[in-house]
Amino acid sequence: MGILTDSYKASHFLQYPPCQRMIAYGEFRSGFDRDTEDTRMVVYGIRYLLETYLHRQWTIEDVEKADKFYSTHKAPSFTAFPFPKDLFLEFVHNNNGYFPVKLQALPEGTCVHAHVPVYQITSSGQYAALCTFLEVILTMMWYPTTVATLSRRARDVIEAAFEESAEAGAASLLLPSRLHDFGFRGCCTVEQSVIGGAAHLLNFTGTDTLSAAYYVQFELNGGEPVGASIPATEHSVMTAWATERAAIENMIDRFGDGLFACVMDSYDYMRALSEVLPGVAEKKVGRGGFMVLRPDSGNPVEAVLEALRAAEKVFGVDINSKGYKVPRGAGVIQGDGINLTSLSMILSAVLKHGYSAEAVAFGMGGGLLQKVNRDTMSFATKLSHVTYADGTEADIMKSPTGDTGKVSFPGALAVKRVEGVPTVFPAEGGYVSEEEDMLQTVYDCGPVKKEWPLFRELRARIANEWPALPKKANVVSQPLTDKIQNFKRRRQQ
Amino acid sequence: MGILTDSYKASHFLQYPPCQRMIAYGEFRSGFDRDTEDTRMVVYGIRYLLETYLHRQWTIEDVEKADKFYSTHKAPSFTAFPFPKDLFLEFVHNNNGYFPVKLQALPEGTCVHAHVPVYQITSSGQYAALCTFLEVILTMMWYPTTVATLSRRARDVIEAAFEESAEAGAASLLLPSRLHDFGFRGCCTVEQSVIGGAAHLLNFTGTDTLSAAYYVQFELNGGEPVGASIPATEHSVMTAWATERAAIENMIDRFGDGLFACVMDSYDYMRALSEVLPGVAEKKVGRGGFMVLRPDSGNPVEAVLEALRAAEKVFGVDINSKGYKVPRGAGVIQGDGINLTSLSMILSAVLKHGYSAEAVAFGMGGGLLQKVNRDTMSFATKLSHVTYADGTEADIMKSPTGDTGKVSFPGALAVKRVEGVPTVFPAEGGYVSEEEDMLQTVYDCGPVKKEWPLFRELRARIANEWPALPKKANVVSQPLTDKIQNFKRRRQQ
Repeated sequence: MGILTDSYKASHFLQYPPCQRMIAYGEFRSGFDRDTEDTRMVVYGIRYLLETYLHRQWTIEDVEKADKFYSTHKAPSFTAFPFPKDLFLEFVHNNNGYFPVKLQALPEGTCVHAHVPVYQITSSGQYAALCTFLEVILTMMWYPTTVATLSRRARDVIEAAFEESAEAGAASLLLPSRLHDFGFRGCCTVEQSVIGGAAHLLNFTGTDTLSAAYYVQFELNGGEPVGASIPATEHSVMTAWATERAAIENMIDRFGDGLFACVMDSYDYMRALSEVLPGVAEKKVGRGGFMVLRPDSGNPVEAVLEALRAAEKVFGVDINSKGYKVPRGAGVIQGDGINLTSLSMILSAVLKHGYSAEAVAFGMGGGLLQKVNRDTMSFATKLSHVTYADGTEADIMKSPTGDTGKVSFPGALAVKRVEGVPTVFPAEGGYVSEEEDMLQTVYDCGPVKKEWPLFRELRARIANEWPALPKKANVVSQPLTDKIQNFKRRRQQ
Repeated sequence: MGILTDSYKASHFLQYPPCQRMIAYGEFRSGFDRDTEDTRMVVYGIRYLLETYLHRQWTIEDVEKADKFYSTHKAPSFTAFPFPKDLFLEFVHNNNGYFPVKLQALPEGTCVHAHVPVYQITSSGQYAALCTFLEVILTMMWYPTTVATLSRRARDVIEAAFEESAEAGAASLLLPSRLHDFGFRGCCTVEQSVIGGAAHLLNFTGTDTLSAAYYVQFELNGGEPVGASIPATEHSVMTAWATERAAIENMIDRFGDGLFACVMDSYDYMRALSEVLPGVAEKKVGRGGFMVLRPDSGNPVEAVLEALRAAEKVFGVDINSKGYKVPRGAGVIQGDGINLTSLSMILSAVLKHGYSAEAVAFGMGGGLLQKVNRDTMSFATKLSHVTYADGTEADIMKSPTGDTGKVSFPGALAVKRVEGVPTVFPAEGGYVSEEEDMLQTVYDCGPVKKEWPLFRELRARIANEWPALPKKANVVSQPLTDKIQNFKRRRQQ
């Protein structure tokens, strides 16, 4: 446990001025992909960090191992690498081994705009200098929050296309399966697949990332299922048979009365659509099920349109009440090259060519679970307050010249809805009562009694909160704005 | 365990033709960032996957939990989600619960070019259809291999600059600390930080990712240290004091006789260099240690040059035997915006302005451990051989029209050095003896007896192999080329 941070963090207890209280907070400083027009996000992930790291009691052995380690973790000309051994031993002995900070966080699944603090850490007394020791672990909230936000924004795109072209509009029961998580193998580790895959499941039910579906169902949702998939081929299946046709016929034999998907570019995508598909059509129709065609290379927009045209030609189409074509018993899933941009482009082209969005699903792999990083929404933790050893209080605000994006808020903070928008206030001054504060205490020098909502409740929370928020908003309350102005004025003096 | 794969993988046992043997292999299809001029890579990561997942014995309970899960993991109109329950139970009962495939892999730390198989999976008998079930887990080798390769390529860039401008050239003892891992907080999970951070440590000793340094030291290197760092400030330290000068003076008091680093842009970077630094110079010089200046915003090239100029002005420089300036008792670490491109640009500018590369270190965070993905070096697993139930053998080769990058090799494969270059051969035909084959058996329906080299031996292996390889090479042997040609000719007939 004593090594779950950056090296330099271990030395910071000697670097802060003597103090009796410190406060720091974490915030995303931008919308997804630095978007300034839509700065909303789905905040998610504190529970895993709490249960995995904060709720673990440190032992003497942990400290001894850390000691052994730090004594060797030094540059050649440096005599020893410092770490707060005495403070660690102190809380092992006198705080049941629990790390001695207070942690407040937004409820899981809360939708807020950039700059709203997602957590706030307070350390006091002899432990004051440990305030930011856990920053590295807590910062990892960037990941599930970023994936949940990306996935939600993809849902917005799909909902708009459904509203326009699908029989039941955005209320269609098909919609939750329309963005399928293909990202397991593109993750760096299994742990990541669980966390990222769970974040996606806040918004959709479609997933092949079984690790996440299993974890969420049994650990976070009382056993009730949260994810679904269908039998589907990969290239190894298609190429293991003597012919592509034989591979598809086997799929029809096995799964033809239900839903199944076949990847279509093992040899020659266009030939598979124009020659192989018609050859199996009668057999497929005879079984009565639903066949999903999966392109996997080429230009994604063209590949999807070609599949729709082939499905129309081979199986026919119905025209739905919105006037859009829906192929009979067949559809397309595009799982190659999907990101927010290509998703929009494909759906636009699909509708433009008269097909309903109902006919198309998407698979997102590395784009969903791996091609994001801490800069995607600019996450950072900042110190905001110090009470020095002599009792003097000082609010802290980072405001470097030449980089206005890196400005931080001074003082202890609270978050309260103003006209529905979660807004940042000074914690002191009576603006926000403890009950109103959305920054709830989730840990207080040890676990606190807390009932976590079921995963399905988080889904409902997001479904309610996300569309109710304006795409962007000023989240800095007047009292905090005043405080910032005063702070800057004082510094200039 | 039964859910550590993609959903569709669980249905593949019903999708393959009846067979008695299947072979698949994994390869990177390109050099780092799709580089075609340097396709070398450092292969790393199979041991962790073996020890964490393959060496685990499945139990009846695992299968029952999987059963419970799969029965609910289905689309609404689909009756049940299939998974190979009987096969799982079979190996739980009759193979001690070990997954029944054979796995060969390149030795950890081997340097090869793109397209050389890094692992090969063989499944036989009743278990033949399980060949690719573990693909998702094994594919995660993309991550440590990609990070190890990126980090090694960064080392090449730094070595070239040292060779030109440092006292001892690339043999300088300073070199291994010159790329420092700042990536812990930018990881998605702690597990990732361990695996990615370890991959970096194959090439460098500089790291703040303690999770990795600790793991490698105690689990992979017999307790001998592999990573080092120095006490360093962050913004919270600098801003917690009444003035920046007070923060630096405290650092000098605490660590001034050794190595220490201060971030310099908390308020105004240029002012910190021109006013604050001269103010603490006498105190700093008096303690005799080494102070590292850390810019953290702005244009990285300019920021480094400004720090070097300030160090020259405040502390003076010596001219080394290569004619380059080395500031006295001070240096710079640039940890913002570092990737292979900016690294080269900064070092070029540093040398061009007459400073030695010795004076500059680099920190790489998200760029090192997170801004990579499975496409960075195009990793994929492909089926290469099937022996059908009736004994007929068929080599499999994916060769889709219109995407020559996705061509795979047919048949069982072996790897042997030809003039030092690891080269791919057909496994059969007597070209490569079992002893010669670099694809060593690391698992055979259960753990195999194997002594893993210490981490320091891997470091030595890479240091030898990497520079000895040409930047690119043809890795397809003549016999395999002939086989591919024959395969294509037969298909066209």
